[in-house]
Amino acid sequence: MDVLFKRRSIRKYTDQSVSEKQIEQIIRAGMAAPSAGNQQPWHFIVIRDREMLDQITTFHPYAQMLKESNCAIVVCGDVSLEKHERYWVQDCSAATQNMLLMAHDLGLGSVWLGVFPVEERVQPLRKLLNLPEGVIPLAVLPVGYPAESKKPADRFDQSRVHYNGW
Amino acid sequence: MDVLFKRRSIRKYTDQSVSEKQIEQIIRAGMAAPSAGNQQPWHFIVIRDREMLDQITTFHPYAQMLKESNCAIVVCGDVSLEKHERYWVQDCSAATQNMLLMAHDLGLGSVWLGVFPVEERVQPLRKLLNLPEGVIPLAVLPVGYPAESKKPADRFDQSRVHYNGW
Repeated sequence: MDVLFKRRSIRKYTDQSVSEKQIEQIIRAGMAAPSAGNQQPWHFIVIRDREMLDQITTFHPYAQMLKESNCAIVVCGDVSLEKHERYWVQDCSAATQNMLLMAHDLGLGSVWLGVFPVEERVQPLRKLLNLPEGVIPLAVLPVGYPAESKKPADRFDQSRVHYNGW
Repeated sequence: MDVLFKRRSIRKYTDQSVSEKQIEQIIRAGMAAPSAGNQQPWHFIVIRDREMLDQITTFHPYAQMLKESNCAIVVCGDVSLEKHERYWVQDCSAATQNMLLMAHDLGLGSVWLGVFPVEERVQPLRKLLNLPEGVIPLAVLPVGYPAESKKPADRFDQSRVHYNGW
């Protein structure tokens, strides 16, 4: 499980395109995530359109690397698929984490760009992607061949661990 | 990355206790998760107290396996640690998914028992664990040696994949 520690947020990519096969493997990893009552309340939008990728940078302050990236996946929740209300954020977050791990394992780089619950990002992205009522973008994941490398992070902090209560 | 597909929700455990070392490895995996602005807004409560584990089953309808489990970890968000407001749920969900993967990799079983945002679970758990203001339990993860086995799930659904918009 070294991948859990070696995976880092990668924001610089080469020009090389990721393949459809790689994108499918990443989405397959997302869909393998657990969800409340196995409700799987998710959709995945693959964006390769240059103009759409550029558009996102106009309203998302941390998405400027999309100008240099040629592919991104938007993870969306669909409240109409919920059996357990208001768990879609957790379900889709678990899926997103699986996708970041798979991207790393494939030798690719990605980063979790938060969208929901910031309305100034959610609304323009819903409009750009023409999402139906009840489908909410959670996060954007640029995917590319890494043009930067980072050492594994050690974030362990014993002070955050408690026993039998606070 | 077979672990992503082989990991399943395990709800039956043997009597064998998991070690402190194993629990630390699972929490270490949680803390390796990405978070908004690397804010790491999490705390982890390890419960081995028999009475406390039993108490949780009185208010959590899906936590009955805790009667047979001798350890659980509660993943909590701490809003006072947030640099990016309202992202703690996503951050702690990524941490939770990492923990489930690590548990599987160690040969252990676990399951994501949802707590937040259901108030009838959040409030009694906050009281039981004596959590300070702003610390919110997201999920309970029983951890044990598996007494059941499940085949990998194939949840891939092409109809959930869209290209350049809906």
